[in-house]
Amino acid sequence: MTSVHRFLRLTDPRRTDRERVVILGSGWAGYTVARELDAKKYQAVVVSPRSYFVFTPLLASTSVGTLEFRTALEPVRTRRRTNFSFFQGWADSVDFKAKKISIEEAVDDPASSLALTECRKEARKEREDEKRMETRKGKLFDLTYDKLIITVGCYSQTFGIPGVKKHALFLKDVGDARKIRSRLLACFEAAALPTTTDEQRRRLLNFAVVGAGPTGIEFSAELHDIIREDLARIYPELVPFHKITVYDVAPKVLPMFDEKLGKYAMDTFRREGIFIKTSHHVEELRPGAPGEKAKSGDHSVLTLKVKEEGEIGVGMVVWSTGLMQNPFVANALDGVKGLPKTFELLKSGSEKIDADSLHWKVKKDDRTGSIMTDSRLHIKLTTSDSESNSHAPEAILKDVYAIGDCAIIEGTSYPATAQVASQKASWLAKRLNKGDMDEAGFSFKNMGVMAYIGNWNALFQGSGGGNISGRTAFLIWRGAYLTKSVSWRNKILIPVYWMINWMFGRDISRF
Amino acid sequence: MTSVHRFLRLTDPRRTDRERVVILGSGWAGYTVARELDAKKYQAVVVSPRSYFVFTPLLASTSVGTLEFRTALEPVRTRRRTNFSFFQGWADSVDFKAKKISIEEAVDDPASSLALTECRKEARKEREDEKRMETRKGKLFDLTYDKLIITVGCYSQTFGIPGVKKHALFLKDVGDARKIRSRLLACFEAAALPTTTDEQRRRLLNFAVVGAGPTGIEFSAELHDIIREDLARIYPELVPFHKITVYDVAPKVLPMFDEKLGKYAMDTFRREGIFIKTSHHVEELRPGAPGEKAKSGDHSVLTLKVKEEGEIGVGMVVWSTGLMQNPFVANALDGVKGLPKTFELLKSGSEKIDADSLHWKVKKDDRTGSIMTDSRLHIKLTTSDSESNSHAPEAILKDVYAIGDCAIIEGTSYPATAQVASQKASWLAKRLNKGDMDEAGFSFKNMGVMAYIGNWNALFQGSGGGNISGRTAFLIWRGAYLTKSVSWRNKILIPVYWMINWMFGRDISRF
Repeated sequence: MTSVHRFLRLTDPRRTDRERVVILGSGWAGYTVARELDAKKYQAVVVSPRSYFVFTPLLASTSVGTLEFRTALEPVRTRRRTNFSFFQGWADSVDFKAKKISIEEAVDDPASSLALTECRKEARKEREDEKRMETRKGKLFDLTYDKLIITVGCYSQTFGIPGVKKHALFLKDVGDARKIRSRLLACFEAAALPTTTDEQRRRLLNFAVVGAGPTGIEFSAELHDIIREDLARIYPELVPFHKITVYDVAPKVLPMFDEKLGKYAMDTFRREGIFIKTSHHVEELRPGAPGEKAKSGDHSVLTLKVKEEGEIGVGMVVWSTGLMQNPFVANALDGVKGLPKTFELLKSGSEKIDADSLHWKVKKDDRTGSIMTDSRLHIKLTTSDSESNSHAPEAILKDVYAIGDCAIIEGTSYPATAQVASQKASWLAKRLNKGDMDEAGFSFKNMGVMAYIGNWNALFQGSGGGNISGRTAFLIWRGAYLTKSVSWRNKILIPVYWMINWMFGRDISRF
Repeated sequence: MTSVHRFLRLTDPRRTDRERVVILGSGWAGYTVARELDAKKYQAVVVSPRSYFVFTPLLASTSVGTLEFRTALEPVRTRRRTNFSFFQGWADSVDFKAKKISIEEAVDDPASSLALTECRKEARKEREDEKRMETRKGKLFDLTYDKLIITVGCYSQTFGIPGVKKHALFLKDVGDARKIRSRLLACFEAAALPTTTDEQRRRLLNFAVVGAGPTGIEFSAELHDIIREDLARIYPELVPFHKITVYDVAPKVLPMFDEKLGKYAMDTFRREGIFIKTSHHVEELRPGAPGEKAKSGDHSVLTLKVKEEGEIGVGMVVWSTGLMQNPFVANALDGVKGLPKTFELLKSGSEKIDADSLHWKVKKDDRTGSIMTDSRLHIKLTTSDSESNSHAPEAILKDVYAIGDCAIIEGTSYPATAQVASQKASWLAKRLNKGDMDEAGFSFKNMGVMAYIGNWNALFQGSGGGNISGRTAFLIWRGAYLTKSVSWRNKILIPVYWMINWMFGRDISRF
């Protein structure tokens, strides 16, 4: 018995004959399945670089202080030691045959709580090269599983645009929200200094949001709210200098909503003075004001280069344009070294084959690189290099599942949303709890989409096509997320903050 | 009219014939006087590197999550633009004759929200030498005053003990509290990893508190509370490894309380398993485990060298041993270049003198370096190098006041506490508002001292000598600080957090 397994037994005396389910990730998919697995049947072990779950729909609210950061978080560990153990670490590699994963511990990870934009190994190397900080790989340890559930999620996509990784702010994790809140207030405080010129003020208070999906739109709305409701009263002399612009390469905003709601959002934004620039292309983001050399010291003004507009001085760029495949999926889940007993051949092409002699790999979506699963969420294996070769032999691993943004059920096009991830997770937990995996596969039930568009207005598009906008949709938005929030702690704190901030304004202390 | 003054007029159209009172600092003294000055009579301008006031008695609670960080903060700027303006900056120098201070702007200061242990100029140079980050001096601007109130406070004293500045955590500002909360949880998470040995666990969960004054004692109590009430349930297997030790060079704890209460606190701590080591001397703090070379990578275990004990491996050291004079007081307020009209000679020694021809300097306490004031809080000038030369000519500046931890009234020994600072501030605001400065000078009214000692117990020592300990004192403690907390926002949030954390436990999400 290795020290890991001795330790797991120590921390969880009930481990006797239960199967161990290792869950990689603590996002919507991983956290949901971990909580819903029956602890009498399974010993669940969550492995994630984050020690908490982020309730992502409230992240934009926390980034401006409408809610406090912790109201959007649930720690993975709880006082009631319920059904799962937790190790803070990164999955490094998987041995499907030995049913074992290798984990790199990640307690002191410098990227902790921030959106991920590149493989941690590359980032580490970069930081070392710049000699900006010491970096070291965490210790590795192995963990065996009976069942493995891969819910590692996606990274933020920056399309290789120079400077974006380093100088843009993201909105995928709570550390991102904290950076935005701090930067926004710093921009106003710097603009309020007597040494700041009006031109610098205009740049510092020029906020660019790149990506007009729900995250970008909701953030812009929240940003507009804090400026109108709070900062305009605190810094009235600075109001004329501020500007919010949303950029997107696509010709329209909020593509998941129907035309009418999209137009309603655009009209609302226009009325409120938020600029929407669709079909615009960001080409670069660099420190320093336009025309000046980098780091000239103007309170970290940035220059955003837009193909259609040229160079623009901005105080902050919030980037929310899409997803990039997780390096773990791209690298660790590629070639399959050996096949476990739970390997099941689905089709063998034209002739009989010897599965063990073939070179198998995890089947992935050609376009997005997502892990392909069958409708029961088992990961698929293929011998072909490309999805499109439909004659190649295919198989599944009956003890390995993939759900959340990193996975897609072959033949479906369910979006990479919290709703899909948590439905898949609940479905999988139920099947595992009941042991009836061979029922009809998972199918997604669209519960509608929502977006907050500012000034106590929202959009709601029901699954049947019913559209609601305005104040009523806003009440549905708040009601839904309050109901969905996990802990009683947050169900109490969230309305308290809504009330307090409505009465007294958002807190602008910056630390 | 300079740009600063144009800007001040812009931000505050009421400026006509009001006197401008510049207040350096936003702590207990500065924030109180700024809020209480009559805006009809004075244009108050607060200059501080911090954009908020810290309600210090609650800081220890926030460092373990009993309260959320922001409940101990009040932003200097508010939605209701009341009686004062604010610039985020460091006072750099004063020209008493021209009645003008030079300010270095500090919006992007890297030391923002952390305890100060050395002059920012030295710290900047050090960071530059290590090439660890770019550093730059903020732009300077001048601000004239009619009256100047110096409330710059003190820095944390580290007595030049090697490694303390860099590796210890402090508890003087909200950023310190955040660092402590994060480090504490990281120590437990690292100890929970299967790759961590039992010896490493013992070191990671060994917490040292240096300084047995109220801050050190209250922090130890809060630390013990979170471990007993929360972490012991979340990590039951780790409880045997943890240890809390309070070190002090003095032979007893809580010197400001009388013998009986001090003994009660010691007994309580002993019963709860907190070790108190009085008459112990810390000699060094360095990264790495005892006997190993620095930075060996064991989740940043530290080695604390104590004269009486040798080298000890610890997970965290919280340092709260005392105060060091603010470099602004030490440097900027030394030689006086020229005398303003408000100069008033107090005694001229044995013969008649020509004040302008003498070399004047701000009079300071020989032992602490604090600014000496008269009982009306005017700063004193002297021509002597030492306080003890009682024959040297002395004077006051009638338009310059010093209050808070950086100042002391000559002939008194009021402690450097929030109570003294805020009483002086209120007294001064009242005098300035009424214009009756020549009344009897300030005298301190002791309202009693309190300290939380853990497990819902506290000490309270009334001004008349009445002593209360235990649960009743705890209720007084909570009641007093709830009443004293400034904004309605915090008066609501503080009891909400007390209740929520009592019901559900403290939040342990780490980001």
